[in-house]
Amino acid sequence: MPDHAISPTRREDYPEWYQQVVRAADLAEQSPVRGCMVIKPNGYAIWERMQGILDRAFKATGHQNAYFPLFIPVSYLEQEAKHVEGFAKECAVVTHHRLELSADGHLVPAGKLEEPLVVRPTSETIIGAMYAKWIQSWRDLPVLINQCANVVRWEMRPRLFLRTAEFLWQEGHTAHATAAEAVEETLRILDIYAAFAEEQLAMPVLKGPKPAAERFPGAVDTYSIEAMMQDGRALQAGTSHFLGQNFARAQGIKFADTTGAEAFCWTTSWGVSTRLIGALVMTHSDDDGLVLPPRIAPTQIVILPIHRSDEERERVLAACRTLAAQLTAEHDGDEPLRVRIDSRDIRGGDKVWQHIKQGVPLRVEIGPRDLAAGMVSLSRRDRPPKERTAVPLEGFAAHAATLLGEIQQGLFDRAVAFRAERTVMVDSQAELVARFTGGGGAEPGGRGEGQGGFVLVHVADDPAVAAVCDPLKVTVRCIPMEGPDEPGHCVITGKPVSRRSVLSRAY
Amino acid sequence: MPDHAISPTRREDYPEWYQQVVRAADLAEQSPVRGCMVIKPNGYAIWERMQGILDRAFKATGHQNAYFPLFIPVSYLEQEAKHVEGFAKECAVVTHHRLELSADGHLVPAGKLEEPLVVRPTSETIIGAMYAKWIQSWRDLPVLINQCANVVRWEMRPRLFLRTAEFLWQEGHTAHATAAEAVEETLRILDIYAAFAEEQLAMPVLKGPKPAAERFPGAVDTYSIEAMMQDGRALQAGTSHFLGQNFARAQGIKFADTTGAEAFCWTTSWGVSTRLIGALVMTHSDDDGLVLPPRIAPTQIVILPIHRSDEERERVLAACRTLAAQLTAEHDGDEPLRVRIDSRDIRGGDKVWQHIKQGVPLRVEIGPRDLAAGMVSLSRRDRPPKERTAVPLEGFAAHAATLLGEIQQGLFDRAVAFRAERTVMVDSQAELVARFTGGGGAEPGGRGEGQGGFVLVHVADDPAVAAVCDPLKVTVRCIPMEGPDEPGHCVITGKPVSRRSVLSRAY
Repeated sequence: MPDHAISPTRREDYPEWYQQVVRAADLAEQSPVRGCMVIKPNGYAIWERMQGILDRAFKATGHQNAYFPLFIPVSYLEQEAKHVEGFAKECAVVTHHRLELSADGHLVPAGKLEEPLVVRPTSETIIGAMYAKWIQSWRDLPVLINQCANVVRWEMRPRLFLRTAEFLWQEGHTAHATAAEAVEETLRILDIYAAFAEEQLAMPVLKGPKPAAERFPGAVDTYSIEAMMQDGRALQAGTSHFLGQNFARAQGIKFADTTGAEAFCWTTSWGVSTRLIGALVMTHSDDDGLVLPPRIAPTQIVILPIHRSDEERERVLAACRTLAAQLTAEHDGDEPLRVRIDSRDIRGGDKVWQHIKQGVPLRVEIGPRDLAAGMVSLSRRDRPPKERTAVPLEGFAAHAATLLGEIQQGLFDRAVAFRAERTVMVDSQAELVARFTGGGGAEPGGRGEGQGGFVLVHVADDPAVAAVCDPLKVTVRCIPMEGPDEPGHCVITGKPVSRRSVLSRAY
Repeated sequence: MPDHAISPTRREDYPEWYQQVVRAADLAEQSPVRGCMVIKPNGYAIWERMQGILDRAFKATGHQNAYFPLFIPVSYLEQEAKHVEGFAKECAVVTHHRLELSADGHLVPAGKLEEPLVVRPTSETIIGAMYAKWIQSWRDLPVLINQCANVVRWEMRPRLFLRTAEFLWQEGHTAHATAAEAVEETLRILDIYAAFAEEQLAMPVLKGPKPAAERFPGAVDTYSIEAMMQDGRALQAGTSHFLGQNFARAQGIKFADTTGAEAFCWTTSWGVSTRLIGALVMTHSDDDGLVLPPRIAPTQIVILPIHRSDEERERVLAACRTLAAQLTAEHDGDEPLRVRIDSRDIRGGDKVWQHIKQGVPLRVEIGPRDLAAGMVSLSRRDRPPKERTAVPLEGFAAHAATLLGEIQQGLFDRAVAFRAERTVMVDSQAELVARFTGGGGAEPGGRGEGQGGFVLVHVADDPAVAAVCDPLKVTVRCIPMEGPDEPGHCVITGKPVSRRSVLSRAY
């Protein structure tokens, strides 16, 4: 094992490997506030890129940003029966509006509120209350609004990015005149999420509707994108909900149609969160640390000057600056390449390993001998850490975007292949059960051992399915939408179903 | 009074005029949650531009973004004595982490927390706790971090943007090895804020330190930028705090210096909030509604097609799209011009007035007759609403950025002149008192009547000054830093002081 690798390896202890990768890349850490994480600059820079890319996609499809209150009166949460049932168990509740010094010299809550407020776990109810005021006529529709915000869902077993009491997300909330338009919106966003995951994060996803038991509380249909992590488990990476008229009826979101008749709106909601960072980490990283696909990497290329004397330092740094300027003038899509010179005065080996662990796609070392020969020393994060290639300095910048594109595609292809190897079609309950018990593991003795990977199987949307799956710790992730229908019979209930579902263990 | 103007006018009722301008421009409204506003898409688009511009300035000066928890344990707030005193009276307190159904069928708080949590009113204490962990050596310094977040300070008399229980802001928090570096940082940010206010918002500001009584709770020095609103009152538009070692001592933020000796860090914090939108509205808007300086306007130019028949519509819309493309290819600084075609099917007059009230800097109307003559009809938001100029379509795009620059400069010059007319130097307590009582008003019978504007006067940093000012509802806003020292004696205490302070009524 190399000196600087992550310990433990993925194979030794996957959950602990994940924590160590996050720590080594300095992305986030637990805060002293139970369940709440601190997103450090390296982690936040990834979130900023995610937000920015999605924001452009939302705006290009007619959405606007707005901001709604953090607090939701308990009575609002109660309006939609399933919704409150889904969230009441994990709400942070504000009951007072000031602190007072008690007799023993400590601060205690004072100024009790008439009605307690909940810190938003999601904003359907508060946003719906505003839509009910704003929407009068068909002319006001559609309303297409997104919000970037923090939300709180109390969490007893927090895990950085994957499961935290407070997390950051974007939540879209739209209202439409017809069911068809709302469904179209739900699927348009699902497509945006899937394209974002695959093209930007190099993370292949399956997209499709979820069974009733896995729906968002209050939704008519929930669609998700599901990615496979390197332990063979699924991670739900984004959801898009068709809410039908459930919230519109509960909250009185009505409009006068073209004939003047009053009707309830059809609404949607959809979101992705900082959980995506966890998915990104677990999709690509290796036993040396974080691996970032170039499109999402805050720094795509790091230039590392190597020198001993001050005279060498000046010459080398000048060459680094010239190269950085050339690289920044090149583009990846319509964005300039993101380049950084790391001239900090620390040991070269430590510095290189820091960038490996932070997942920077390309490292370029430049020393006096390289300069004399007109070369630079190039290392790729998708290749072994000691692999260096000498390439001519001249023309390197012009080639860099192509190289980054190759790395991006390579990571995607690798993830697709990984998933394909761990996905099986199954046509009986016995096979399904075997897959998730002992010897049926995705990669015996290796990563994903015993987790079973993805199983494509015909199952009905029926409680009998959960009865079989629950003891296996398996859930129906979604019914993947791609490809033609393949009718069959539920391997558990025998009911006819039109497509296979994907089942797996999940985060 | 024109049909569509804002009612009341500024002169009739300034506070109500403000509310009506915000409403007519559709920037924000009160939510059903006491004290919390909803920032609507038009308002949020302004905030996004503000954030984006400041974010680039912060990054250009070496700052990184991160994210810290929403919740602060009460014990953290208690660590700095003045800090807790300043914020305890207006805190939202979380005491429970779930809701349960009570016997009478209502949801009530359950799962009582061992220690109550406060929703952050500001983040010095929670961020300081992390810095104490992160900082070990002088090599770790400076730490330069910014956070964009929501904060809550309970508010009984809310006013859109100006005073709300929840607001959005950016808060920077930095740690340094020396007092000099921390002071330099404090002033660097103050300069960024002042340049932002003047160059982007066309809002002239005075910048300088505040007297002790007006400092941020726990700060050694608080610097602010102060703008004059159109009623002659001051609005504090941004603050930058030198915290000395107060928080470092309270929280144990220590480092080993180059000799290995342990020392406390010197810290700063600084922020601007959505309050800036209120300041922007009150600085430039008129009795027709919102006026936006072009640099901050989400839409700089709106193109309004005029047509009767379908055939006309197609021809006119095609010309609009061509012009929009030409305009978007032009730049204001390094940004493309922000252009929108409004082809909605509503009455032309209503549409024009909507854009006037939303403050769009330039309106371009194009109809069939204009097209035939190769002309467009141009209106500027800084000119009377009925004023239209026919200008040649050819070459208009190339001229547009210059025109927007003229409007930007014109608004700034107008605001500077307005402030100059309402700023006086005063050299006695009697004059000071007279200025803020009855006949001493800034503009008798007009805007700013009886408010007194800005008064430049020598006053000491002494409670005796507040004793005179409080009954007048006047405060010392800051000690403006520009220009040479002008020593004098406090008009109230007689103590020698080196510069004049600016006193005024304030938001």
